Amino acid sequence: MDKLRGIFLPFPTPFASDGEVDARAVGSNIARWNETGAAGYVALGSTGERAHLAERERLTVVEAAREAVPSDLTFVVGIGEHSTRATIDEARRVAALGADALLVITPHFYRSQMSAEALAAHYEEVADASPAPVVLYSIPQNTGVAIPPDAVARLSEHPNVVGLKDSSGDFVGFTETARLVGQKISDGSARDFALLTGHASTLYASLAVGARGGILAAACAAPRLCVEIYEAFVRGDAERARSLQTALVPLARAVTTRYGIGGLKAALDAAGYAGGAVRAPLASPGDEARREIARLVEECTGLFAAGQKAAGGIE
Amino acid sequence: MDKLRGIFLPFPTPFASDGEVDARAVGSNIARWNETGAAGYVALGSTGERAHLAERERLTVVEAAREAVPSDLTFVVGIGEHSTRATIDEARRVAALGADALLVITPHFYRSQMSAEALAAHYEEVADASPAPVVLYSIPQNTGVAIPPDAVARLSEHPNVVGLKDSSGDFVGFTETARLVGQKISDGSARDFALLTGHASTLYASLAVGARGGILAAACAAPRLCVEIYEAFVRGDAERARSLQTALVPLARAVTTRYGIGGLKAALDAAGYAGGAVRAPLASPGDEARREIARLVEECTGLFAAGQKAAGGIE
Amino acid sequence: MDKLRGIFLPFPTPFASDGEVDARAVGSNIARWNETGAAGYVALGSTGERAHLAERERLTVVEAAREAVPSDLTFVVGIGEHSTRATIDEARRVAALGADALLVITPHFYRSQMSAEALAAHYEEVADASPAPVVLYSIPQNTGVAIPPDAVARLSEHPNVVGLKDSSGDFVGFTETARLVGQKISDGSARDFALLTGHASTLYASLAVGARGGILAAACAAPRLCVEIYEAFVRGDAERARSLQTALVPLARAVTTRYGIGGLKAALDAAGYAGGAVRAPLASPGDEARREIARLVEECTGLFAAGQKAAGGIE
Amino acid sequence: MDKLRGIFLPFPTPFASDGEVDARAVGSNIARWNETGAAGYVALGSTGERAHLAERERLTVVEAAREAVPSDLTFVVGIGEHSTRATIDEARRVAALGADALLVITPHFYRSQMSAEALAAHYEEVADASPAPVVLYSIPQNTGVAIPPDAVARLSEHPNVVGLKDSSGDFVGFTETARLVGQKISDGSARDFALLTGHASTLYASLAVGARGGILAAACAAPRLCVEIYEAFVRGDAERARSLQTALVPLARAVTTRYGIGGLKAALDAAGYAGGAVRAPLASPGDEARREIARLVEECTGLFAAGQKAAGGIE
Repeated sequence: MDKLRGIFLPFPTPFASDGEVDARAVGSNIARWNETGAAGYVALGSTGERAHLAERERLTVVEAAREAVPSDLTFVVGIGEHSTRATIDEARRVAALGADALLVITPHFYRSQMSAEALAAHYEEVADASPAPVVLYSIPQNTGVAIPPDAVARLSEHPNVVGLKDSSGDFVGFTETARLVGQKISDGSARDFALLTGHASTLYASLAVGARGGILAAACAAPRLCVEIYEAFVRGDAERARSLQTALVPLARAVTTRYGIGGLKAALDAAGYAGGAVRAPLASPGDEARREIARLVEECTGLFAAGQKAAGGIE
Repeated sequence: MDKLRGIFLPFPTPFASDGEVDARAVGSNIARWNETGAAGYVALGSTGERAHLAERERLTVVEAAREAVPSDLTFVVGIGEHSTRATIDEARRVAALGADALLVITPHFYRSQMSAEALAAHYEEVADASPAPVVLYSIPQNTGVAIPPDAVARLSEHPNVVGLKDSSGDFVGFTETARLVGQKISDGSARDFALLTGHASTLYASLAVGARGGILAAACAAPRLCVEIYEAFVRGDAERARSLQTALVPLARAVTTRYGIGGLKAALDAAGYAGGAVRAPLASPGDEARREIARLVEECTGLFAAGQKAAGGIE
Repeated sequence: MDKLRGIFLPFPTPFASDGEVDARAVGSNIARWNETGAAGYVALGSTGERAHLAERERLTVVEAAREAVPSDLTFVVGIGEHSTRATIDEARRVAALGADALLVITPHFYRSQMSAEALAAHYEEVADASPAPVVLYSIPQNTGVAIPPDAVARLSEHPNVVGLKDSSGDFVGFTETARLVGQKISDGSARDFALLTGHASTLYASLAVGARGGILAAACAAPRLCVEIYEAFVRGDAERARSLQTALVPLARAVTTRYGIGGLKAALDAAGYAGGAVRAPLASPGDEARREIARLVEECTGLFAAGQKAAGGIE
Repeated sequence: MDKLRGIFLPFPTPFASDGEVDARAVGSNIARWNETGAAGYVALGSTGERAHLAERERLTVVEAAREAVPSDLTFVVGIGEHSTRATIDEARRVAALGADALLVITPHFYRSQMSAEALAAHYEEVADASPAPVVLYSIPQNTGVAIPPDAVARLSEHPNVVGLKDSSGDFVGFTETARLVGQKISDGSARDFALLTGHASTLYASLAVGARGGILAAACAAPRLCVEIYEAFVRGDAERARSLQTALVPLARAVTTRYGIGGLKAALDAAGYAGGAVRAPLASPGDEARREIARLVEECTGLFAAGQKAAGGIE
């Protein structure tokens, strides 16, 4: 799955002032991001407030995004219900809308029953039935369910399971997963499996242990910075990759753990994209936090404006 | 809300052999439970696999149950989406179907943002809009979100918030909640608030610190035993309440933490109700576990068969 | 072990103004507590800052306390090292000082290795060697190690293991432990096992499910209130027990989770005992917190001053 | 503190067949390790069973090790009690024995009170008084207490605090700590602070984000492999560093999380060092586990025997 390399943007869903999905803003944001070097998009991920959208609203977002994403970039859509059968239904519906791959979140309401065996069986059944390739999605800070490294390894042998987004922040587990999926399978062939991090603060380290890229909320607000970390790593410039990674961390934390999706949307506002409001019970950051976020955005984007044209570095 | 006293049955949703909701079995189960002394029902709770049901299936369950529940028993329906607006929509739809009260689960996908303030604001907005009274629902083992005691106390002053089902098993927090909602409110009047436990293993202790009853999965399989614990407590027979409570624990654990909903459905099969299969990725217990569960059911129900007619005790 | 019934005081270690152990204050505090109806004492428990005392200081505390505790009250001493052999050495030394029983904390530095099997083997070896009876001590909030109910049940069959202090606050586990140690052992005889709670906020509920009493930090500051809860329960006055329990909670929380041992010592100061400073890195509460604590102490002790002589109640 | 660069061995304490500390084996193990390229040693760390040793036994270990460690290698000793004053006493005693630095574990029995402020104050007082430089030691899996990144940053400005061993496995926190201590201090000068990982599975990634080396239990069993990872990183050979890192993980897990110190000692036995027994309640692995461990040791050491002389790689 060579389409899953580089930096992917799990974009938030913009709402108009009446609180409804703003399909036009979906398209205009993507049009701008198309120029940043990002490898593709994820619609309806955790950052996309999929959990807050009705079925018809999800359709609106996917259609608007599909139209705006050029064919040489990768278009992934987030899906996943608590039952296997509902997840399969959704996979079929969404694949028909033109998704290149589906990011399938773990079932999690009955989390205490979600053993490695139960998860593997679920994903195998979904992958068997899904018309589009499946990317596993492990985000225990939201779900309480992590996909264990050996379950990922087992699933990576399924021809329709093409990758993992690991948002856990459990770097030890991530490293172990990388080790296991880096091994040859029983018939001696290498797996083709896209290990992607969902944790912007560990992007560089994740690449260093074998990730092919990242699906990063922070990349929506600072796409050039994230893309440049990736490119510096690929060309072997570890020092620059590390230096840029350090510059990314404060923004990455502000738009995730500290202020959540409301913080990310504020960062988009500051960066000139359509950000706007979140749906309750989520809340937008207050004025002081918005100013802090705007400052962090400016620090990140400033690295690649005049500076880049001139001397090309942040050192 | 005097209709929220005693033992409530959060019944599982039976599926026919083709995997679809079996509306007739919903009715026949309830018809039998109506004779047990239970105070009412909860449709579409966590035990009811609400998370596994499509919108139209939820409607089927509620309609079948509404028809089978007599008017002198209380009929509660479980609802709750991740956004406030979707939860309000659902509250209106479900209230129109004849629910006496709504058991509203906490939003939880964005759990790290679910502060006491966010939860209180969410529930107040829902309670303002809901045509039916609201029962708060805290089940952190499934959601990662607990409603803190002081948020419950604040919400208990809202005229349309009538109770709490606390399934957390955090007895210290439960006791603190009981203390706070037992206090008079600012105008000097007492709150009328139904504190209910969702934890069968602590039913007696919960009653002892101020609960008005319980909404107990185990009570679906052993209704008489649970009702008798409640009645023994009410008439002041602490010794018998404690003794029966001890007898309940092994079954209560088997149908919750140990084997989950699959275990509860096996217990229903053993007790002569329509139990049956669960939807994947949940699994049914194996043959050995089913035999163990059947034995536990027999021990609990045996206490109230011949024994009860004869000398009336288990001592 | 009938000496382990009722309310026990795990007293803090008073320090003189030069920071050294104040042996005289140990004695004078105990002299006052002897008049409160408490059933006995625990020296060198978690509340006693045993972890902060050198070997010779521990000796000083035990000797001063032993002298002050009358023979009809029970005198327990806290011990326990990380290795089995060091724990046995300590058991022998401390038993020789006149302890009626030893409260033996779980080993815990290598907590991930402390399986039920490892804990049971450790305690059995200690109990075999100890000249004084052993009380198990489970306090996972400090140690990260809880003794599982079935390990307690196994150990309760050892003739020299006479009880458990469970400070976990895990009431579900406590109830399960009570159920298991309430069963007859294989030869048909009943266990004589003293289940004691270490959690003042659940004293009444713990008694209701089978505890014989409590070892309660809060009882050092409000001994009469705790003793009266116990006595109300024993004489079957559930309503008064519950009402007094509710009155105890705010103080109990202030001197444990909220302000720690520094808070308890401030409460002792307020109640006229020798409280004083804690050793760093612990800290004493600030002035505002001290005023709050003093107010809570007054509320608790006020229940039993004039009020008690007059009408005898808080209702 | 340039002496804190590279790979350090936190060696286990060998016991003779009578269960007593085997001072001669301490020396003979070190004599062999001196030839491996390791940068130094830590006596009496968590792996050294310091928690299981009496005061006089600790002295024996330190004296035997001090004698065996050549002056061009770094000799660190683990210390740390629960009170500040006892920790200072110990720092003075141990510094006098010739330690180059002290690895000072967090106080942790009263963990809920160990705020960032309390930890910082504790370490500042210890560092003020200690004759030898202080290395902070954060190992929350044993203690329940992690030193937060901003507390590390604050402490890194103290002239006598020279580094941190972070064994948490929390790589996100580690990265944040690296970012903060990489910043210049207020007077514009750079900090000289040795950030060391205690987690062998993330050695390479830790170096990539700024660690100066590691203090690694697994390095006692596979010193050459760990040293080679470090050296490959330093000379910029990321591919080889990553490849060797992958080879290390199975052994690293076996001698820590899976089998604990008993597993590490079995690995030493397999590698020809003096390993032997652990003290109860720890246990040695069974025969099957010992065979597995021996196989893992052979795989790691085999990489550097014939193979290294010949073609120099594992690729």
